[in-house]
Amino acid sequence: MSSARRVLAISGGVGGAKLAFGLAALLDPAELLIVANTGDDFEHLGLPICPDIDTLIYTLGGLADPLRGWGLAGETWQCMGALGALGGPDWFRLGDRDLATHLQRGALLRSGLSLSEATARLGAALGVRHAIVPMSDAPVRTLVDTDRGTFAFQEYFVRERCEPPVRGVRFDNAAAARPAPALRDWLAGSPQPVVVICPSNPWLSVDPVLAVPGLRERLAALPVVAVSPIVGGRAIKGPAAKMMAELGLPVSALEVARHYRGLADAFVIDREDEAQGDTIRALGMRVLVTDTVMSDAASKRRLAADVLALMDTFGA
Amino acid sequence: MSSARRVLAISGGVGGAKLAFGLAALLDPAELLIVANTGDDFEHLGLPICPDIDTLIYTLGGLADPLRGWGLAGETWQCMGALGALGGPDWFRLGDRDLATHLQRGALLRSGLSLSEATARLGAALGVRHAIVPMSDAPVRTLVDTDRGTFAFQEYFVRERCEPPVRGVRFDNAAAARPAPALRDWLAGSPQPVVVICPSNPWLSVDPVLAVPGLRERLAALPVVAVSPIVGGRAIKGPAAKMMAELGLPVSALEVARHYRGLADAFVIDREDEAQGDTIRALGMRVLVTDTVMSDAASKRRLAADVLALMDTFGA
Repeated sequence: MSSARRVLAISGGVGGAKLAFGLAALLDPAELLIVANTGDDFEHLGLPICPDIDTLIYTLGGLADPLRGWGLAGETWQCMGALGALGGPDWFRLGDRDLATHLQRGALLRSGLSLSEATARLGAALGVRHAIVPMSDAPVRTLVDTDRGTFAFQEYFVRERCEPPVRGVRFDNAAAARPAPALRDWLAGSPQPVVVICPSNPWLSVDPVLAVPGLRERLAALPVVAVSPIVGGRAIKGPAAKMMAELGLPVSALEVARHYRGLADAFVIDREDEAQGDTIRALGMRVLVTDTVMSDAASKRRLAADVLALMDTFGA
Repeated sequence: MSSARRVLAISGGVGGAKLAFGLAALLDPAELLIVANTGDDFEHLGLPICPDIDTLIYTLGGLADPLRGWGLAGETWQCMGALGALGGPDWFRLGDRDLATHLQRGALLRSGLSLSEATARLGAALGVRHAIVPMSDAPVRTLVDTDRGTFAFQEYFVRERCEPPVRGVRFDNAAAARPAPALRDWLAGSPQPVVVICPSNPWLSVDPVLAVPGLRERLAALPVVAVSPIVGGRAIKGPAAKMMAELGLPVSALEVARHYRGLADAFVIDREDEAQGDTIRALGMRVLVTDTVMSDAASKRRLAADVLALMDTFGA
């Protein structure tokens, strides 16, 4: 690997974090900046909760629960049990050790630190060597318009279990947000970074990042590789496929590629979707067909290596 | 027992809560109001923490840890362990289930409930049948002036382990506080209540209650029985004896009685302190000599019965 390589990875939660883990396994900390979606963030029980940041920290720190797909391995649930007995809101499952992350983040934010600074402190404390930064230090909040009304993201995602049919997605306060300082610096540095859009939900996890004013345009001027979160017409995790159908879109990797038209220069699809390759190429993108389902550390590293090899062909 | 009896018990934490437990075992909910010191309350990690209210709720709900002397029986400490690993403030030990109490209290307060209302909700949810009310819904904060500076109460009590020599105690914001509504109503009801000052620290746990404007005068007009927290020159629990010495006071039940002069009509001392009875009587108080150390449920009920029997002699 060239030491001059600079990779900017955009990630939501679980799926994106898997590829971020693979990239972090192959790149030095100076070579990688991971930008987390913060549209999912919310205040709950007075705690500032940043689900995608925490999933990235826990995944890169080797602390994530491999089976449940979210939260910490070996977690306990004493507090939630007691909260339920008190008649409190226990629909958002906060593990006992996970709670410490939110309590400490709150303490750091109250002490005057920015979300970027608080995230860096939490990551360092949990052994994460690579930089994870929020897309913005300003609160941007994803709102999901559904047949049953508008929900804050976590209400839709967890409390309503993604059941209400989605009609649209909005990003509250996005117009006022600025990219986080480390993201601005990374974009201004040289050599120019290459961008990886991790296999996260395009509408719910990546679009909030792109909604930060100026960011989409700045990224579009860079080499961008996007990895499809849709494989064989299904989402590996989460509501992407259901949402696409509800929005009247075909559930396919091709449709995700269409969504990234004008932004992505290359698109990574699974072998299962190889037949869509030519249509995606016709959108003006290079296409890499490979194994994109990441079931273990080895497959995360392998996909990351494939993406990095594809990137090395840019500018060639 | 007369059904017309109305008892107002003033209590701090552990020692006071033991007698409150005994009184609750002998009195109907309509006969007893327990007024909790809130001078110890503080905001920690963004959570509204009310140590004396919670000790009363946990004790009356049969949930208190009998060995540790604070917190919940069968508690776990996963969150604190994780918080310590994050470099967070773990000097105030919040158990995983105890955390739920503070999270839910915060949620109730943010929803617009008063501290009285939130306390009633928490008590009911944990099976407490008797009313526990804060002395005031307004924040009153006990400040401890020491040789090493001024500390908020819990900083002095927990973080500094009561080590700095005490020079004085103040109650921040007391002048602006009003008695909690249920306390005002109880005082205005008939028949007139009799008052029990539980065996709590007079300077740290009872004086904050008496600092609420008008309360000391109102209580002084009622029959008041105080129970000494000092037995044989020692405090059963907590820093009362150490504090008394640092304030230049003799460490004795007699000195506690002197502190309550003009307020208490009767004073309850342990058999071990029987020799001080005549000097206390000379202060103008009746004296009851009995076993005041409460080591189990039976001894709590027995002392409560002794206090109630003494009260029945008032007005006779």
